[in-house]
Amino acid sequence: MASVMAFNPQYEAIGKAFAQQYYALFDNAMQRPNLASFYHDTESLMSFEGLQCQGKLKIMEKFNSLTFQKIAHIITSVDCQPMFDGGILINVLGQLKTDDDPPHTYSQTFVLKPTTGSFYCQHDIFRLGIHNSL
Amino acid sequence: MASVMAFNPQYEAIGKAFAQQYYALFDNAMQRPNLASFYHDTESLMSFEGLQCQGKLKIMEKFNSLTFQKIAHIITSVDCQPMFDGGILINVLGQLKTDDDPPHTYSQTFVLKPTTGSFYCQHDIFRLGIHNSL
Repeated sequence: MASVMAFNPQYEAIGKAFAQQYYALFDNAMQRPNLASFYHDTESLMSFEGLQCQGKLKIMEKFNSLTFQKIAHIITSVDCQPMFDGGILINVLGQLKTDDDPPHTYSQTFVLKPTTGSFYCQHDIFRLGIHNSL
Repeated sequence: MASVMAFNPQYEAIGKAFAQQYYALFDNAMQRPNLASFYHDTESLMSFEGLQCQGKLKIMEKFNSLTFQKIAHIITSVDCQPMFDGGILINVLGQLKTDDDPPHTYSQTFVLKPTTGSFYCQHDIFRLGIHNSL
């Protein structure tokens, strides 16, 4: 059986808007709890610096356990691809500044899965890269 | 309808072996044409430094157009997640050395899609990061 092609023609605009909104929430301590709305109760997987957890509650627990006071994600590039089930694959490269630490590069991969009228984040892989020498 | 869970229990071993094999082929000019075996004739998407192409032929054309003499990918981290359709999501961070240029960091995301008895690379996003200051 041939695959049904169901590319979302708006994949790039949706992917880039998602990344911007995600980090706007993440970087604002008052808004950070709203990240929960992006994750599915059970069908979201996150890998955070190699530690894997599944489901909205565990993912939010992980975020709540992080110990920085201030955080800023600065996006360097966002690459998006349409997926064959209507989903969107997103790869972000950026710089992360926490408190007074030197900036780190980071890479974050998301898979957005379509659901009724919207998307949720089915996969999320976050990994810090090296320190930037300034 | 509830989703059918079909996680591949070997996702991590498969993902890591794929990354090692992929770069072993890529970094050897004699072996590089064999990368074609990882891509589907039509259902593979690649984004290479922001340029997107689809299908094995276009992807191999892109690789063949690259102008380095020597290349080496040094893997820093490989994060893998099982996907709900039996696929595998892989995010690699590494360092890339071409000829006598200073090393770059890079990020590469793959989605391996299961097919009869094997996998093909359905999505591939490659993006160079910053120069490493040495």
